[in-house]
Amino acid sequence: MTVHIDKIEIKTEGDNDTINLTDHLAECIKRSGVSNGIAHIFCPGSTGGLTATEFEPGAVGDLKAWFDLHAPPTPPGPPWGDYFHHETWHDDNGHSHLRSSLIGPDISIPVRNARARMGTWQQVVFVDFDTRPRDRTLEVTIIGE
Amino acid sequence: MTVHIDKIEIKTEGDNDTINLTDHLAECIKRSGVSNGIAHIFCPGSTGGLTATEFEPGAVGDLKAWFDLHAPPTPPGPPWGDYFHHETWHDDNGHSHLRSSLIGPDISIPVRNARARMGTWQQVVFVDFDTRPRDRTLEVTIIGE
Amino acid sequence: MTVHIDKIEIKTEGDNDTINLTDHLAECIKRSGVSNGIAHIFCPGSTGGLTATEFEPGAVGDLKAWFDLHAPPTPPGPPWGDYFHHETWHDDNGHSHLRSSLIGPDISIPVRNARARMGTWQQVVFVDFDTRPRDRTLEVTIIGE
Repeated sequence: MTVHIDKIEIKTEGDNDTINLTDHLAECIKRSGVSNGIAHIFCPGSTGGLTATEFEPGAVGDLKAWFDLHAPPTPPGPPWGDYFHHETWHDDNGHSHLRSSLIGPDISIPVRNARARMGTWQQVVFVDFDTRPRDRTLEVTIIGE
Repeated sequence: MTVHIDKIEIKTEGDNDTINLTDHLAECIKRSGVSNGIAHIFCPGSTGGLTATEFEPGAVGDLKAWFDLHAPPTPPGPPWGDYFHHETWHDDNGHSHLRSSLIGPDISIPVRNARARMGTWQQVVFVDFDTRPRDRTLEVTIIGE
Repeated sequence: MTVHIDKIEIKTEGDNDTINLTDHLAECIKRSGVSNGIAHIFCPGSTGGLTATEFEPGAVGDLKAWFDLHAPPTPPGPPWGDYFHHETWHDDNGHSHLRSSLIGPDISIPVRNARARMGTWQQVVFVDFDTRPRDRTLEVTIIGE
């Protein structure tokens, strides 16, 4: 049984920028030597999220449009004047924290035959909800044998 | 320490059809021989989701109604004419990808005394957001001892 | 390789009460003796959720306000008269189940050097969506070496 710890380093543009992690994850699994188990990916930072989608510009754009509509940069009205988070820090990324809490900061993917067992039209993605470009280091843990 | 890999095969009706996985998961845990650890379930496919709820028609219907209201089959207006995903593939399941990304494709459940440690009124469910009936094979990984 | 099972016991006020689990989780990791791996936290009960945020009153209040707007205690209109879950049980917490299914009942956090590897401004939280104060026992599983 192996516990392999690893990292994925990426640059993002912020504003719901969505990064396909498939190739990064394949490299981590290869380095782990694990054939069967799970791969866990985590974003240390409360303005990002991990999920899966079909990684093509349409589906990626739909997710951004959904969040722009349902958790917009400027809140839609009462009970908000401005997001309460902005009142705490005079910050501008209240909606980023909201989106991150809704999507969640982690995902686990099954490893089978030394590969991530995803669907053909399914990719694991990091979404950066922050309001500016960011360098992100994601934590990867692969457990299996 | 054991890594047990398994599958759950189900048929769904699509359109937010919600399947109670409790009995399937119990069988996987029994086959694994694991007493204490975690059981991870994953949907390979970007139009399904894994979560938990009280599995009774009311709560299941509320989740479907929520998605029909907040991520409807036909988008609610600007910036959308049609979902951007439809423009990519002339497809009809843009809202299915959206719902799947929001719920997420995986869940992990604690295993205690060789059983899934759920609440009395809580069941682990697969929700099929696709627009047609589907045969689904979910990947199960049980790690523990 | 270790599988450490543990519990976190908390009292909540219900109504989206958000509890910072950081110190509880640190104690579990210390008891586990695990240096590198993952820590999984699960809520047995279908009216709670696990996620991460910046734990300050503003961001916590934004999440409550978002749910009060998008999954309110009284449903916003058709297809609902009342939540369908209420019609099943003459209960009052249909929106609690809805919020719980959307956030999900579990989260996994990487363990590095015997500590939870979170962001500086990021905390793991339990959100109690139920309509009354609750005593909650969360299940913790730490796997690693």
